[in-house]
Amino acid sequence: MRDLMAVTARPEVISLAGGLPDTSTFPKETFAAVSARIAEESCAKALQYGPTEGLEETKDCIAEVMAAEGMRADREDMIVTTGGQQVIDLVTKTLIDPGDVIVAEGPTYPGAVPVFHAYQADVVQVDMDAEGMRVDLLEETLERLDTEGRSPKFIYTVPTFQNPAGVTMSLPRRKRLVEVAAERELLVLEDNPYGLLRYEGDALPPLYSLDGGVFVMYLGTFSKILSPGIRLGWVVAPPPVLEKINLGKQEVDLCTSTLSQLMVQAYFEGFDWRDYVRSLTDIYRTRRDAMLDALAESFPSQAEWTRPGGGLFVWATLPEFIDTTDLLALALRDNVAFVPGTAAYLDGRGHNSMRLNFSGAGEDDIREGIRRIGEVIKEQVALYGTLTGEMPVVQPEEPVVPEGEGGRVVAMPRRPTRDRRAGGA
Amino acid sequence: MRDLMAVTARPEVISLAGGLPDTSTFPKETFAAVSARIAEESCAKALQYGPTEGLEETKDCIAEVMAAEGMRADREDMIVTTGGQQVIDLVTKTLIDPGDVIVAEGPTYPGAVPVFHAYQADVVQVDMDAEGMRVDLLEETLERLDTEGRSPKFIYTVPTFQNPAGVTMSLPRRKRLVEVAAERELLVLEDNPYGLLRYEGDALPPLYSLDGGVFVMYLGTFSKILSPGIRLGWVVAPPPVLEKINLGKQEVDLCTSTLSQLMVQAYFEGFDWRDYVRSLTDIYRTRRDAMLDALAESFPSQAEWTRPGGGLFVWATLPEFIDTTDLLALALRDNVAFVPGTAAYLDGRGHNSMRLNFSGAGEDDIREGIRRIGEVIKEQVALYGTLTGEMPVVQPEEPVVPEGEGGRVVAMPRRPTRDRRAGGA
Repeated sequence: MRDLMAVTARPEVISLAGGLPDTSTFPKETFAAVSARIAEESCAKALQYGPTEGLEETKDCIAEVMAAEGMRADREDMIVTTGGQQVIDLVTKTLIDPGDVIVAEGPTYPGAVPVFHAYQADVVQVDMDAEGMRVDLLEETLERLDTEGRSPKFIYTVPTFQNPAGVTMSLPRRKRLVEVAAERELLVLEDNPYGLLRYEGDALPPLYSLDGGVFVMYLGTFSKILSPGIRLGWVVAPPPVLEKINLGKQEVDLCTSTLSQLMVQAYFEGFDWRDYVRSLTDIYRTRRDAMLDALAESFPSQAEWTRPGGGLFVWATLPEFIDTTDLLALALRDNVAFVPGTAAYLDGRGHNSMRLNFSGAGEDDIREGIRRIGEVIKEQVALYGTLTGEMPVVQPEEPVVPEGEGGRVVAMPRRPTRDRRAGGA
Repeated sequence: MRDLMAVTARPEVISLAGGLPDTSTFPKETFAAVSARIAEESCAKALQYGPTEGLEETKDCIAEVMAAEGMRADREDMIVTTGGQQVIDLVTKTLIDPGDVIVAEGPTYPGAVPVFHAYQADVVQVDMDAEGMRVDLLEETLERLDTEGRSPKFIYTVPTFQNPAGVTMSLPRRKRLVEVAAERELLVLEDNPYGLLRYEGDALPPLYSLDGGVFVMYLGTFSKILSPGIRLGWVVAPPPVLEKINLGKQEVDLCTSTLSQLMVQAYFEGFDWRDYVRSLTDIYRTRRDAMLDALAESFPSQAEWTRPGGGLFVWATLPEFIDTTDLLALALRDNVAFVPGTAAYLDGRGHNSMRLNFSGAGEDDIREGIRRIGEVIKEQVALYGTLTGEMPVVQPEEPVVPEGEGGRVVAMPRRPTRDRRAGGA
């Protein structure tokens, strides 16, 4: 991944690989006004250490963001963190000893994979379809673990506009997941960076609001609604877990940037942060549509992909015989990049899938990038046909979900959930 | 420590506990100018993710700071981090498996104690005197470990204006330490936040410059020369270690705040950063002198303390029968705080010592704070005399070092180095 990021930083490369928001339209006058206010009113404070758990005034902004998604959280239940990534790290550090089980979606957030691996978690990935994590399979998995005398330390999920799959967990599944957590007294880490980036339809309640914060821990971030460069996220968790996260945070970086925290506060006080989110939503919706159109036009008929109602990613699945890691090498020769599907699994799956980002590139680049990737795929399909004398099709055991509203929806690859030790990310 | 920090945040408390620099004199016009420049020239970049290893332009500033202390480091050997604390965490995470040995000074930086503890390191603390770590004792320790078939994974040292002891490692010891590291192929982590905060005398070469970066890893930070609120530090390390630190950093927070990195760059380009360091140095020198005067005036004759030539801390040692954790409870009733000495050890030592900070409070507060602590100590001494019928003296086995230049210099408590598993911090 590191090398990939270095390669995609080259200006000639169209990168559909990262999860970069578009920060180019943030009004520089706003930035200037916010900074000028800090200089005038709180310069010494912005430059000083702050409390490990974060500033109260920043927590008020967090409460406001959570309220916009129908959640109520108290300041004493929150810790402000150095981005959302730190939450995944600290929660894992706090709860996991080597060999402990984490249940995650398959595929899961590629940035969580090396974290789970580093703490030697035994990650069980539960398949998804167009309605998100298959909670029936989750229950089967928990039953099976039960018979082995094991129980997950937590369930990690991105229920809304999932990274990397782009799918959203349906309301019945949300309700059932929260029930299952309560019945079994299992912690859930709800990672929700994208909930406010909705391009159609109505919002579904976050797991946190359904559960009331009893078993559901919540990860939020300003990265996608304001800026990832300020490295500002947060966690809401039950007191015993929160206390340990706080001690862990003290060890790793003492406190979150006071400057960043006061920037958010001044921004929230002086401007309507929802305006900017609305403008981002308009930009990303257009880009998503450009990507979906380009996929329909440029990808071969054997390929399938999801149609996200929000967020930043499309997940595409190619015929079984294509390895997207090899494909990436070919694509990079044509100066286009994506994330190979194996990055989203800890068990070696995902070899014929890819994550495609549509927030970080303009429409023309998206169309051209998808066109180039489509060409490379078609070459591979043709080559396979020449070598084997048959026309490849998508494996029949892959469940193709009925068309969803507003477009083509294709399921995640489905295979028996495997339980194995975290392998190489 | 967390509760202590919460208590000391109360306005009526004079805190000599934290390691807070004084950020109140940073010119707000400078902050405004730097921010305005970023708004104008690099707003989108400041708000965006950056590379995990840091921005090249920030690394140039780091090279400039290191050059000011006589070091030369290449950009490709550096990683920009979320403060210096993250370096301690990432180096420990990278190099230590449970039970591995770290050699540190006794006392050592209190913020490193919970980190070493969290990774279950076996920390051996080598005593210091007025010339810093006793390198002869270090060699004895390494010999002893050798006979046990063990070798430290790294040696952690703050050679200049040590936190918490305030002492500085002499040139002969620096040279010998670097030789020992080379002879035994041992990594050293040189933690140098305070080197530029020198109030008298000439600078000594950092270990990094003596060794050339072969075995010495270097930890630097902008926290004490500019601002801790921007959370910006760095590490210089040999390539194999650096690569692992980079992967570790990607897991814990993806990248360091781009905003903070560009703030530093714009500040370095637009202003002379040395000017501000000079002004801080003047302020802290006066505060140090106020503290040393107040100690001489207010502490009983049985107490001893170091006389730092720079940095932020004085280390005071009281008669053996005083427990500074109990003393702190009494001192807090009088609204004054310090850090008890046990926070600087992993083996339960330091019970009769305390760390006193002189950078975070004005002279009047320092004098009043020391006076109050002195009163509480005197009460304890008198109580002891009443109970035992004798006048307590400093234990005769404590080596009192001859007076140093310019003031009273008192040695660190000296006891046999003990080798035990990291205990509670």
